[in-house]
Amino acid sequence: MPIDNPYYSAAVHGDFELADIGDLVLEEGATLRGCQLAYQTLGTLNAAKDNAVLIPTWYSGNHSVMRDTYVGAGRAIDPDEHFVVMVNQIGSGLGTSPHNVAGPYGRARFPRVRIGDDVVAQERLLREVLGIEELALVFGGSMGAQQTYEWAVRFPDRVKRAAPLAGTSRIYQHYVIWAQTLVDALTSDPGYVGGWYRDPADVRGGLQRHAGLFALHVLSNEFWTGEHWRGLGFSSPEDFVVGFLEAYFQPMDAGDLLTQAWKW
Amino acid sequence: MPIDNPYYSAAVHGDFELADIGDLVLEEGATLRGCQLAYQTLGTLNAAKDNAVLIPTWYSGNHSVMRDTYVGAGRAIDPDEHFVVMVNQIGSGLGTSPHNVAGPYGRARFPRVRIGDDVVAQERLLREVLGIEELALVFGGSMGAQQTYEWAVRFPDRVKRAAPLAGTSRIYQHYVIWAQTLVDALTSDPGYVGGWYRDPADVRGGLQRHAGLFALHVLSNEFWTGEHWRGLGFSSPEDFVVGFLEAYFQPMDAGDLLTQAWKW
Repeated sequence: MPIDNPYYSAAVHGDFELADIGDLVLEEGATLRGCQLAYQTLGTLNAAKDNAVLIPTWYSGNHSVMRDTYVGAGRAIDPDEHFVVMVNQIGSGLGTSPHNVAGPYGRARFPRVRIGDDVVAQERLLREVLGIEELALVFGGSMGAQQTYEWAVRFPDRVKRAAPLAGTSRIYQHYVIWAQTLVDALTSDPGYVGGWYRDPADVRGGLQRHAGLFALHVLSNEFWTGEHWRGLGFSSPEDFVVGFLEAYFQPMDAGDLLTQAWKW
Repeated sequence: MPIDNPYYSAAVHGDFELADIGDLVLEEGATLRGCQLAYQTLGTLNAAKDNAVLIPTWYSGNHSVMRDTYVGAGRAIDPDEHFVVMVNQIGSGLGTSPHNVAGPYGRARFPRVRIGDDVVAQERLLREVLGIEELALVFGGSMGAQQTYEWAVRFPDRVKRAAPLAGTSRIYQHYVIWAQTLVDALTSDPGYVGGWYRDPADVRGGLQRHAGLFALHVLSNEFWTGEHWRGLGFSSPEDFVVGFLEAYFQPMDAGDLLTQAWKW
């Protein structure tokens, strides 16, 4: 049974569209039937259809953070010039994700999705739903950079520019280790009960440790030594860990995070 | 009640002595009554009593790893020249530690011990038991380096040389974060039951994740990318994680590790 989670809503992330792109046969063999992608567009596709910019999402992020960070007048990508398509990756919580899938592939039985599956799904969305055959730019950070590289390799003639930020085309073993610590933090919580928790907050201990791993490995020694949490309005390292990192992750769905972690 | 753990024995770590240094009043306020330090000596104290070298231990380590790595002919410290005293830190598992203390301060009620407490205890051992008033050298790595700095600061006239290796005199916030992830990995295991597990292996899940954190944060990106596990005789990254890191930590006592982690 799907599980209710108010975090994954327009109330939190702003408006988005849902497109049914049909059955998606995954690289690992399963099929996501009636796969839905959640996306938001800003700007207008021009007559030549050559001003489209695709922005996929990073681990744990949604289109909203990409929009609020990179899109707008004075930001990197201006919707006055470009037709901007921000698309949430499969398993992000918006669109087809473990927590919202009904039927046999829901929740803990959600299949393994690869970066290539996201790109195949996004290409279908662009071509079949939005009528876009060519991208002026694909731009993504971290796991979004992985999708950016994949786009450039799969569709070299249709990607005019690719801007991968803070990501690699080939996974480092150290990142396999990193992803495993995230998986272990979540799945070891007794409240996870093999993925069949009744309430997202039942995994709060695992989500707390998951946040702690970001404190350790995503934030740097320089961040902590330089006390950069001060400039963000926090009163102590602990205040930042609880008030920012834990606050960020606690509303999320553990199963959705696990689907993303597995892609790394 | 103390808990039996065959890892902390001469059969595993080689010969050592146990010295009762009396009641140790800790900086945090508790008293370790009849505190015992486990140590090994190599070489002979000369008539001038000026050739003593003290080697404390790092996190999770015992005198045996210091002996086998740094002490001996052709190694950094030669017992033909020096009287080498290798002393296990409080909570290391050898000597007074959570798992082996009987009475009210045993197991989960073991008091908080600071680096300064270790140095006070070691100074008492040297002076009262071994008749040493002056150290030609204090040498320690990581948490042993913290003890080395503490020695030099507390007893500047009696420490002729200090060689702290891979450690800092002031704790970085990033290391507070690091220690917290270790603590969380162990204490979140349902088998930990607040520190009152009946068998050390009841915390195997926590010890496994604890090993995974060393894979992430102690070993480097360069170690993984350079596949340096090959030179150590392992067949894959997973083989190294299980066969080396998990094999190393699984026999240990979670409570002993927690006492050491808290010192960081």
